[in-house]
Amino acid sequence: MSSFYIGVDIGGTNVVCGLVDAQGRVLHTVKQPTGAQRGSGAVLRGVADLIERLAQEAGHALHSTAAVGVGTPGLVDPQRGITLHASNLGWKDVPVAAILAEHLRLPVYIDNDVRMYVYGEATAGAGRGYGTVMGITLGTGMAMSVIQNGTIYYGAHYMAGELGHLAMDGIPYRCACGLSGCLETVVSATGIVRQVRDALAKGEASSLGRIPSDQLTAAAVSEAYDAGDPLAVRVFNDTGRWLGIGLSYAITLFDPDVLIIGGGMSAAGERLFRPMKEQLQKTLLGSYLERLVIAPARHPDHAGVIGSAMSAKSRHAAQQPVTEE
Amino acid sequence: MSSFYIGVDIGGTNVVCGLVDAQGRVLHTVKQPTGAQRGSGAVLRGVADLIERLAQEAGHALHSTAAVGVGTPGLVDPQRGITLHASNLGWKDVPVAAILAEHLRLPVYIDNDVRMYVYGEATAGAGRGYGTVMGITLGTGMAMSVIQNGTIYYGAHYMAGELGHLAMDGIPYRCACGLSGCLETVVSATGIVRQVRDALAKGEASSLGRIPSDQLTAAAVSEAYDAGDPLAVRVFNDTGRWLGIGLSYAITLFDPDVLIIGGGMSAAGERLFRPMKEQLQKTLLGSYLERLVIAPARHPDHAGVIGSAMSAKSRHAAQQPVTEE
Repeated sequence: MSSFYIGVDIGGTNVVCGLVDAQGRVLHTVKQPTGAQRGSGAVLRGVADLIERLAQEAGHALHSTAAVGVGTPGLVDPQRGITLHASNLGWKDVPVAAILAEHLRLPVYIDNDVRMYVYGEATAGAGRGYGTVMGITLGTGMAMSVIQNGTIYYGAHYMAGELGHLAMDGIPYRCACGLSGCLETVVSATGIVRQVRDALAKGEASSLGRIPSDQLTAAAVSEAYDAGDPLAVRVFNDTGRWLGIGLSYAITLFDPDVLIIGGGMSAAGERLFRPMKEQLQKTLLGSYLERLVIAPARHPDHAGVIGSAMSAKSRHAAQQPVTEE
Repeated sequence: MSSFYIGVDIGGTNVVCGLVDAQGRVLHTVKQPTGAQRGSGAVLRGVADLIERLAQEAGHALHSTAAVGVGTPGLVDPQRGITLHASNLGWKDVPVAAILAEHLRLPVYIDNDVRMYVYGEATAGAGRGYGTVMGITLGTGMAMSVIQNGTIYYGAHYMAGELGHLAMDGIPYRCACGLSGCLETVVSATGIVRQVRDALAKGEASSLGRIPSDQLTAAAVSEAYDAGDPLAVRVFNDTGRWLGIGLSYAITLFDPDVLIIGGGMSAAGERLFRPMKEQLQKTLLGSYLERLVIAPARHPDHAGVIGSAMSAKSRHAAQQPVTEE
């Protein structure tokens, strides 16, 4: 049996494909824009083409790949291989596994992209060697996954871990999901910008007032923070505090060995993590906090590709007949 | 192999032992005061005597019991068979399984009492037939356990599910654990009384003011509620609302099929569950709430005994050599 796997991470902006060995090492990657506006059929044909380009560039015979793993955003049914709902792609009930399997003539397994990111970190990254791994991704939204002894915790409807949709009393913003006060309305790149815009509209003084509102980014707020801008400092402090509250709840309920933090907004680093850790001191029992390892993702760019490939490996092996030694 | 099991529920006040068949049916139970002040050695000798009385009364040959399961309060290491810490018993690092096994000459398995209660409901009660079962017990404190496809979620240090120690901004009370604002400082029998005492001390008008402070009970507050006392109504509404907030977080993170509510304080019924459900409407996404079954415990008095027995059955079977058909 071949010991090479292909991992695919389909995002709202880009698709990344990687050739991964059985130990979770990335041998080669390729990337292209998702082009979601073309519709799911064209996107998945594009993914199949990209996988063929990957094999060609890596000098790898595609048909000798053992299995392909794919992470997509949104609500995914991994057993049926269907992306049930992914708002940023405009997908509803797309049979991703079947479509790609037909294009590629290879076994294809799919799952949610955050679960695959955390699975990649758990099996071949910062979570390796720990029994209970909690991982969160901070980006345009926030989500969480927990993996215990190699097994992903899914819940009854594959909806476990929606940390971004804990609704909190003191958060004033309406969420796209319909609830008010969801954590991700503040703890996200868009949430940082939302808080700054909101404060500027209320007349709070800041160097950020010079940037046109529609050009404000979380990166600009980071820069202002480093220059000591009081609004930027307050917004990062508030955001880190909210993140700490949400995490103290998740940790109290899941009791992980290690918390891994990834996603684009984790680049904010201590601007966010210092107030987060201060909050954990206040709202998390010492018996959790003292033993908790908090680590950044080891493969911030490729954890999703690694996780999809390693999950495909594990699921593919579980489907093979047991052979004599 | 015998198909009878003994389940034991060691509480702060009473010990209950039950003879349970392989289907989780309780055939006979006996009960006696725990007498925790005598120390763990005397308590466990008392448990062994009680088990012998159970066998005698039930006309069951004790040595033909397949295994004994025991639930104790506090932090329990089920693998090593040790109750690490149980404040209401005054226990620290008590090797419960080894001590009882020596007294009884039978295989003994132990676990946390709330996990065993939820396991009993999951295997032979209100959770039977569901994949992902969340159960909470409301009593002097509150705790939660999640069981997915028969497997208990423990976390890294057997500390998962401490719902009562989610610390919330609007809760003004200091918890025995050291944190401020823990859910169980309000959502518990003692929490109901605490809120009433607090309001009375601040001069809030209530018929409950006639009861001497040290004689106030949650049951008395329930009675006042039924008589339309405005303070009792407010306290139950607040308590149900806090319970709803905590549960909306737990459900968003664990995505259960069914939520089972048990424990002494669940006798408050709709006084508590109506404001709890109203809160769930506000802070829980429809995609969870629409499909969630909320049910009272089916075995409110014996779920712990059933769970301990059924867990012992499952763990004992896992230790047996595989036999030829």
